Amino acid sequence: MHSSNASETDFFTPTIDDIRDAARQLDGMAVRTPLLESPFLNERAGGRILVKAEVLQRTGSFKFRGAFNHISRLNDEQLAAGVVAYSSGNHAQGVAAAAAMAGTTASIIMPSNAPALKIANTKKLGARVITYDRNAEDREKIGEELARETGARLVRPYDDPWIIAGQGTVGLEIAEQCQKQNLAPDAILAPAGGGGLIAGTSLAAAADLPGTKVFACEPVGFDDHARSLQSGERQKNAADAASICDALLAPTPGELTFSINRAHLAGGLAVTDREVEQAMAVAFSDLKIVVEPGGAVALAAVLSGKFDVQGKTVVVITSGGNVDPDFFANVLSQQT
Amino acid sequence: MHSSNASETDFFTPTIDDIRDAARQLDGMAVRTPLLESPFLNERAGGRILVKAEVLQRTGSFKFRGAFNHISRLNDEQLAAGVVAYSSGNHAQGVAAAAAMAGTTASIIMPSNAPALKIANTKKLGARVITYDRNAEDREKIGEELARETGARLVRPYDDPWIIAGQGTVGLEIAEQCQKQNLAPDAILAPAGGGGLIAGTSLAAAADLPGTKVFACEPVGFDDHARSLQSGERQKNAADAASICDALLAPTPGELTFSINRAHLAGGLAVTDREVEQAMAVAFSDLKIVVEPGGAVALAAVLSGKFDVQGKTVVVITSGGNVDPDFFANVLSQQT
Repeated sequence: MHSSNASETDFFTPTIDDIRDAARQLDGMAVRTPLLESPFLNERAGGRILVKAEVLQRTGSFKFRGAFNHISRLNDEQLAAGVVAYSSGNHAQGVAAAAAMAGTTASIIMPSNAPALKIANTKKLGARVITYDRNAEDREKIGEELARETGARLVRPYDDPWIIAGQGTVGLEIAEQCQKQNLAPDAILAPAGGGGLIAGTSLAAAADLPGTKVFACEPVGFDDHARSLQSGERQKNAADAASICDALLAPTPGELTFSINRAHLAGGLAVTDREVEQAMAVAFSDLKIVVEPGGAVALAAVLSGKFDVQGKTVVVITSGGNVDPDFFANVLSQQT
Repeated sequence: MHSSNASETDFFTPTIDDIRDAARQLDGMAVRTPLLESPFLNERAGGRILVKAEVLQRTGSFKFRGAFNHISRLNDEQLAAGVVAYSSGNHAQGVAAAAAMAGTTASIIMPSNAPALKIANTKKLGARVITYDRNAEDREKIGEELARETGARLVRPYDDPWIIAGQGTVGLEIAEQCQKQNLAPDAILAPAGGGGLIAGTSLAAAADLPGTKVFACEPVGFDDHARSLQSGERQKNAADAASICDALLAPTPGELTFSINRAHLAGGLAVTDREVEQAMAVAFSDLKIVVEPGGAVALAAVLSGKFDVQGKTVVVITSGGNVDPDFFANVLSQQT
């Protein structure tokens, strides 16, 4: 395990010990989200599906875990200088909530076309929101400049060891919840944008569920993890790619995350927007949870048959539920 | 505590010991549902709100608890004869699932205008569904006759000690979850139809959260518990009353349930359909859970201000999430 204080220059590769340390840091602060099961869902999928409901996490996505694990370790001087983040919306809310809980201020750079709910909630959580044009501006550059100008700490959405370790507590909980039910799942499927959730989860699974394969799930057009895993090198998505999965539009796998994912993932799967919408409707009907498009890609991979679950036990992570009501209503209406 | 075998003539008043026994019976079978909290919800309501998410229970409502507690105690001869139930839809699914798990057959009498999802799911769970006209026929009479003709056991939706004890495990879990957070809630608010959930919950609260007041929440026009508590006698609802809360349309409080509720409840509150729809939309946005109309009345009581939560800590039970997608989509669309 590495130092439990975060310093500006930290860029180490996290290990299972860092994830266990993050679990202690998050104890009583993050929600221990349930692993849900539905006979209807099992029947639809043709296998046994366990759904890790991170939509029920504080701020409506897993992102709070990493953000709190990072921000709660800052020292008084760092807290006084505040934090900066760039995010399509879920990391934004996670950082805003963690900053408020740790007693610091947050400035968040968000795309102007992010879902209205995500922007509004980030502001409600007390953060200052700065919007940028997703197609014309470089959010990393804006974030780095702002951090340099103000002395605030930049909390990156995935290429950060504390963030990866925090997200890895999802995998630790899955392992504990499976062991409690005497289950050894064949696979864990998780959404992948920058790859922080799946990097942490695959590290945890390698330690605590050694026989379980971990797969990255992505929208068609943003299958950079799938292609990078095949080629062994980080691949980029086409600049003109589009998807309803606003949380999963990172242009390429993270550097630090891919160094982990390359070693631990079994492969990647890509699903269409239509398959994502169907999965959102199934989560509504069978599980009674609200899942946003990007949060539903792993469930979509199972329901579409792109990942064969016949005779298998598979854990699916639904990673977030921050979706505008009009969009969700439209998804439900189109299914019937 | 009473005998742990259910016999045809049992009609005793359950106690806290029966609820603790039910908790043992349900261990590993029912979902231990989370107690959710949202800073956004707290801000809207003006107090601290903890939401017991029974929508995540097996079959999408608390009803599985009582049904399994009853049916899993039947002996081989009783199991061979099957079970009969009448229900607007949630007890139906609870009985169907519990019957399948206990290895017996279920025949369920359901109103022909019940939500399509509830009828379809009851069938998918393996039960035989018999529909009746809610306005013209007496479901209790149909159920009793069918039980008499076939020798099947009638599993009543609320006036049954095993059912009340099973539903009371919701209250036990709330007490445990509050104690773990060092919280002593000022009040628990729960939906009331026949009154089984609130009877069991108020028994559990009286034992394990003695300072906590318990309130029944109902749709306007079906405020029979509120009026019965005021008068001390069971009151009936007007025959022409209507509400979107299909799960809460019982004509009068149960006999057994009211004998408990009269002694333990602090009062009742009635909410409009519009307030219920607003609460469903808030549960979607702030909690990421799907709540059906009848499941949302307690949340509606808090959000409408009909129950004043200023400076208080209040537990709200969201009791079910079985709502048709078109209806839910329409609720979301109307809010914006």
